[in-house]
Amino acid sequence: MAYVTHCKVRFQHCDPAAIVFYPRYFEMINSAVEDYFADVVEADFNSMHVEGHVGVPTVSLETQFHAPSRLGEVLSFSVAPTAVGATSLTLAIHAHCGDHHRVSCRLTLVYVYMTTGRPVPWPDPMRQRFVTEPEKG
Amino acid sequence: MAYVTHCKVRFQHCDPAAIVFYPRYFEMINSAVEDYFADVVEADFNSMHVEGHVGVPTVSLETQFHAPSRLGEVLSFSVAPTAVGATSLTLAIHAHCGDHHRVSCRLTLVYVYMTTGRPVPWPDPMRQRFVTEPEKG
Amino acid sequence: MAYVTHCKVRFQHCDPAAIVFYPRYFEMINSAVEDYFADVVEADFNSMHVEGHVGVPTVSLETQFHAPSRLGEVLSFSVAPTAVGATSLTLAIHAHCGDHHRVSCRLTLVYVYMTTGRPVPWPDPMRQRFVTEPEKG
Amino acid sequence: MAYVTHCKVRFQHCDPAAIVFYPRYFEMINSAVEDYFADVVEADFNSMHVEGHVGVPTVSLETQFHAPSRLGEVLSFSVAPTAVGATSLTLAIHAHCGDHHRVSCRLTLVYVYMTTGRPVPWPDPMRQRFVTEPEKG
Repeated sequence: MAYVTHCKVRFQHCDPAAIVFYPRYFEMINSAVEDYFADVVEADFNSMHVEGHVGVPTVSLETQFHAPSRLGEVLSFSVAPTAVGATSLTLAIHAHCGDHHRVSCRLTLVYVYMTTGRPVPWPDPMRQRFVTEPEKG
Repeated sequence: MAYVTHCKVRFQHCDPAAIVFYPRYFEMINSAVEDYFADVVEADFNSMHVEGHVGVPTVSLETQFHAPSRLGEVLSFSVAPTAVGATSLTLAIHAHCGDHHRVSCRLTLVYVYMTTGRPVPWPDPMRQRFVTEPEKG
Repeated sequence: MAYVTHCKVRFQHCDPAAIVFYPRYFEMINSAVEDYFADVVEADFNSMHVEGHVGVPTVSLETQFHAPSRLGEVLSFSVAPTAVGATSLTLAIHAHCGDHHRVSCRLTLVYVYMTTGRPVPWPDPMRQRFVTEPEKG
Repeated sequence: MAYVTHCKVRFQHCDPAAIVFYPRYFEMINSAVEDYFADVVEADFNSMHVEGHVGVPTVSLETQFHAPSRLGEVLSFSVAPTAVGATSLTLAIHAHCGDHHRVSCRLTLVYVYMTTGRPVPWPDPMRQRFVTEPEKG
């Protein structure tokens, strides 16, 4: 089962057409990844960045915007690992409003030591929490 | 009693010092005003803007930033009317993290008809929901 | 020759690691597309959206972030059409800082009539300005 | 004479009413302050924050929004010191579009050592560049 978190479409997310301006979806997606790490991986961004000097920068993404989202709608974001590398993680992220599919995103991030900017292997306690599932067509 | 809503400090809100970048507080404050209108005034921004062609643009604000807020903290935003004019509303908004006072804001907004940009009087059902209380020193 | 526009990395673009937060790159990319339409296609976003009730929403993108960008750097964004459909346009966008390649993006947008949300064919004067060039490997 | 810098109103700045969403003005104002420090005070934010571990957080502001700004307009931002304290600086900032006055802002910032969060006195070379002028009524 994918992890699911929610985000309400706010005035700040909307463009002159009163629909979500696409860069704002990536703020929502980043928050969904933040929630996934805090709730599932038990690694919150504050501890990682500020205390541990590690981070998870995004290195690539493929995104399709299927239909616009409107002011006041509540979107669900599902987050599921699809591939785990030595230092990387690929996530499938989908935004829905009810049954309506709005956004598909395949995002790869890397675990890096911030001081050097170099990738480092996932610690075992984190790696064990990345439970992959087959991607749906 | 002031209306209270909450916002978690996200990675997207933080600057290179790992504290909230002050323009992001105004995104949070705007969301708190959005919640206040939806929950207390029973006028949600989508109905107002998209269906009713009315809006509540901010015309002035005075803000003090008492102390920085950090990644991962949950802030409470209290919203209370302090003055109601024919077409305007002044709100006292305070952000706290637990007992720590972070931001004070006095914000005045105006009810306008979007097509003309001209202020219009508050409809009675909205006006009756603005319950003012004396401002605390 | 690709069209080129520039953007300085501002405090507002940077995250707690003092590098560009990736959703901010999409604000920069959207501004580069805005400049391309204004300067090359002679169709500015204000005339399109506000007067013409047409828009160019992004429907898909593939992005690689090759290396981080830092506060104070000036980035160049090159924009070049790689495919023109009846109602769509695919653009190759690359961000560099001097010789350093930072971001590659392949973005497809669609010309839509905002009132219906339906795609409409590119008008000939716009279509004639989309000069495609072969994508570099 | 006040220092003047410019900013074009972009799609990313505009709300569903196709006017600048007010939190975006503070991103523009922060960039104007950034330009003022780089060009007039000869202290760029990157050197200050990343190399010097000092910063200039905003501690208070008073702002009036006189009239809306629209997509595609070019705004000028004037920045002039009105008061210099041992560790603080008050700036008068005004945004215009041609002759039209859009925003007035009185902003106070403090020079702090980021590691401790404590205010520190302005170094003489910086202080000498803060040339105050009487505020216009």
